[in-house]
Amino acid sequence: MFEAAELGRQISKKEFAAEEPGLRTQLLEAQLALRDAGIATVILVAGVEGAGRGYVVNRLNKWLDSRGIQTYAFWDETDEERERPPYWRYWRALPARGGIGVLFGAWYGPALHEHAHGEIDDDAFDRQLNRIADFEHMLTLDGMLLIKFWFHLSRDAQAQRFKSFTKKGPTKRKLTVQEKHYAKHYDAHIRSAERAIRMTDSGDSPWYLIESADHEYRDLTMGRTLLAAMRRRLEQNGGVIEAGLHDAQPPAVPEAKVTILDHLDMTPSLSTSQYHRALETHQHALNRLSWAAWEKKRSAVVVLEGWDAAGKGGAIRRMTDLMDARLYRVISVGAPSDEELAHHYLWRFWRHIPRAGYMTLYDRSWYGRVLVERIERLATDAEWMRAYHEINDFEEQLRERGIALSKFWIHIDQDEQLKRFEDRERTPWKRYKITKDDWRNRAQWEAYKTAVNDMVAHTSTAHAPWVLIAGNDKRHARIAMLQQLVATLESMLD
Amino acid sequence: MFEAAELGRQISKKEFAAEEPGLRTQLLEAQLALRDAGIATVILVAGVEGAGRGYVVNRLNKWLDSRGIQTYAFWDETDEERERPPYWRYWRALPARGGIGVLFGAWYGPALHEHAHGEIDDDAFDRQLNRIADFEHMLTLDGMLLIKFWFHLSRDAQAQRFKSFTKKGPTKRKLTVQEKHYAKHYDAHIRSAERAIRMTDSGDSPWYLIESADHEYRDLTMGRTLLAAMRRRLEQNGGVIEAGLHDAQPPAVPEAKVTILDHLDMTPSLSTSQYHRALETHQHALNRLSWAAWEKKRSAVVVLEGWDAAGKGGAIRRMTDLMDARLYRVISVGAPSDEELAHHYLWRFWRHIPRAGYMTLYDRSWYGRVLVERIERLATDAEWMRAYHEINDFEEQLRERGIALSKFWIHIDQDEQLKRFEDRERTPWKRYKITKDDWRNRAQWEAYKTAVNDMVAHTSTAHAPWVLIAGNDKRHARIAMLQQLVATLESMLD
Repeated sequence: MFEAAELGRQISKKEFAAEEPGLRTQLLEAQLALRDAGIATVILVAGVEGAGRGYVVNRLNKWLDSRGIQTYAFWDETDEERERPPYWRYWRALPARGGIGVLFGAWYGPALHEHAHGEIDDDAFDRQLNRIADFEHMLTLDGMLLIKFWFHLSRDAQAQRFKSFTKKGPTKRKLTVQEKHYAKHYDAHIRSAERAIRMTDSGDSPWYLIESADHEYRDLTMGRTLLAAMRRRLEQNGGVIEAGLHDAQPPAVPEAKVTILDHLDMTPSLSTSQYHRALETHQHALNRLSWAAWEKKRSAVVVLEGWDAAGKGGAIRRMTDLMDARLYRVISVGAPSDEELAHHYLWRFWRHIPRAGYMTLYDRSWYGRVLVERIERLATDAEWMRAYHEINDFEEQLRERGIALSKFWIHIDQDEQLKRFEDRERTPWKRYKITKDDWRNRAQWEAYKTAVNDMVAHTSTAHAPWVLIAGNDKRHARIAMLQQLVATLESMLD
Repeated sequence: MFEAAELGRQISKKEFAAEEPGLRTQLLEAQLALRDAGIATVILVAGVEGAGRGYVVNRLNKWLDSRGIQTYAFWDETDEERERPPYWRYWRALPARGGIGVLFGAWYGPALHEHAHGEIDDDAFDRQLNRIADFEHMLTLDGMLLIKFWFHLSRDAQAQRFKSFTKKGPTKRKLTVQEKHYAKHYDAHIRSAERAIRMTDSGDSPWYLIESADHEYRDLTMGRTLLAAMRRRLEQNGGVIEAGLHDAQPPAVPEAKVTILDHLDMTPSLSTSQYHRALETHQHALNRLSWAAWEKKRSAVVVLEGWDAAGKGGAIRRMTDLMDARLYRVISVGAPSDEELAHHYLWRFWRHIPRAGYMTLYDRSWYGRVLVERIERLATDAEWMRAYHEINDFEEQLRERGIALSKFWIHIDQDEQLKRFEDRERTPWKRYKITKDDWRNRAQWEAYKTAVNDMVAHTSTAHAPWVLIAGNDKRHARIAMLQQLVATLESMLD
């Protein structure tokens, strides 16, 4: 999840200065339009210690009209509050229709703290998260615009930030207890955060992960995302905002310029002899493991996603080459059938879940919902945004049943894709593989990059991580996936 | 919750025969309209053993066009199913758009069974229920009409039904293992059912409790409710059904002719001397208990609801007469203020929740949402129907904080109300108490009775039961409430 917010993205002070005035104006206009429309807005500011949540809140107070905005920190619980049910304080802080509440941590604060500190177990944490999801659902049903930001720092970036706090100078200070705990137990905090985000990431009130190592990037991205969310809400309300202020189709999230795909090391390659040696080893291992899984009645699901011509089909053939055909099925996911269209989009994937001891390989998958369906607008914003939660829950059910799940995204760059397209068009027996759709998708390269980044941010979890594969060199890509799959099966059968 | 479905309601065979043909025709028309509109429908049939769920399903198959309807029982899990995640079998059973699935127990079956048999604890049960709520929400967001019936029998009615199964004759049979368990552990099953219904009773897919002791009443009420739900869904879809077939405003639930209020024994009364003796005793007790609560920092919330002129104000005065004014607050709930209107409807009740050691008495309450707001159409059907769940969750939060909650409905009959209205109009210092609203509400007597019955059915829980008070005799009513309140406080302070 968080790997998509650890990319070292930056914005220069100059770029920031150039964009800020326009953004401020637009944010103010959106705020006024929300006020006129009588829509209550909650901006929930959460994230890791040191990510600069305080600065963000200050920025918000500077950018927006302070008359309509109230900030609540919730860090010093009053007697008044302690003596009532915990949610009393949150109810107090909710803005009236037309107003904006900026809430620090809010209802996530205690749950995250207690879980990361080991004071409550997973069950109690889940119960709290379910209550949160319920509460947020209730508020959004009542017409509230609820925007949830998670400001993220990698472990290293956080350590650097902490170091800067304690450096000599006018801003020198000691670390707080909470900061020290975070420094020592970063993983525990991140685990809690991942679970919290996953369980409360709904279509009504999605989470936005903001990389926060660079101040300018953090604040500008927050501002753009906020603006996009406000405009989307106003659109739904029947377009109260003035013409010219908004684009015809405001994007649900601003486009990412640098994505997790840009950070993939694309250089690894294998020689033919290395490839064949490794191929043989892994294929034999897969054969052995697939029989062992069959005997132990353990199942596996493999998901292959990637650009057109990234080599999904070839990779699948290399996986199945030496497996007994009785033990696996390959599901090629194209346009849905009539029957499939007549059901919920997950239905056609559920039907092919393998029984105990078998393996299903999906050549494209349920992730189409947040990729092609998002980009081609076959799904509404609400539909694909709530799909993250639906998919996470679906995959959790697989895991609970003991099914090993591997998810691969094969990445190639645009030049490589062009080369392969042209090659396909030249080669008679490959020509059937290339269609108009492929060229159209190619034109949407940037949109897909954003979608892939969001997909990883929302659905790469500790239990079902995305594995990004550098695919320019097919030999490397195939071996990397085989290796990963072998490792996954081995650990499942252990 | 279930007390509202243990009223001995009956419909004669003659009445049934008279209504059935029309109902069948309308159900068929609705089914065809749903088919044309491409809306998938799931009719979920759950309830206590012996309630006749099998007969109901047969009835449905008879009434509806069998070509569009599929029935699933889920009682014999196949190997195929057992080897996959539990929800796989439910996904298999989901109808396509335009079709109807009649599902026995469905996703509630295993959870209810395991919890009632003590195989899973409350936490695991809650987790399953949250998954169910999530799943149902996902389906309804996808456009499915999901109708959930709970067919209920009181313990006695169930015992009789079981006896009839084992009686000599052509239908004689032994009780099943599950039936025997139910007979022995009725309370455990009911407790599980209450929790399940409470946690999954949403606006999208509310539960309908059907009293099932009388076959004709059971089937006809099921049919009427089903028809109302189908029509409501079609209305939302833009009125695809033909004119004339439906009323302008189809009720969300059919009106109840006999409600829980009709079963209240209205005869008890007290003499003046009995009254004064009891009053003194209880008022002194309340004084003592309110100080004890203050010392122990335990809070209480008292809710008074009832017909206009039922005596809510007088009862509250009797409760507070001897309490120290610093220890309690009375909140009279009238039309909301501007500020209150600018928030979620629960906001104005949350703000007055007492701090530790204090008591708040609400003269009318959050239940206005499902009473006056429902009847005067100040809340949409979706709004008041989801309010049950919201209110239950709110009250659970009070309970978790250790706050004692008492909920009273003071019932008077129509004659008594008329007498009191006329008395008020005659008496100069009481005249201010009677308004046009009172007369208008009186004209809606039947609608209120249905609403009260539904309110009790959905929100009278083991932890926060409704106490219905016979109010024709004011002395009796006041003492009954004082007594109940004293008992509640005593048990809280124990």
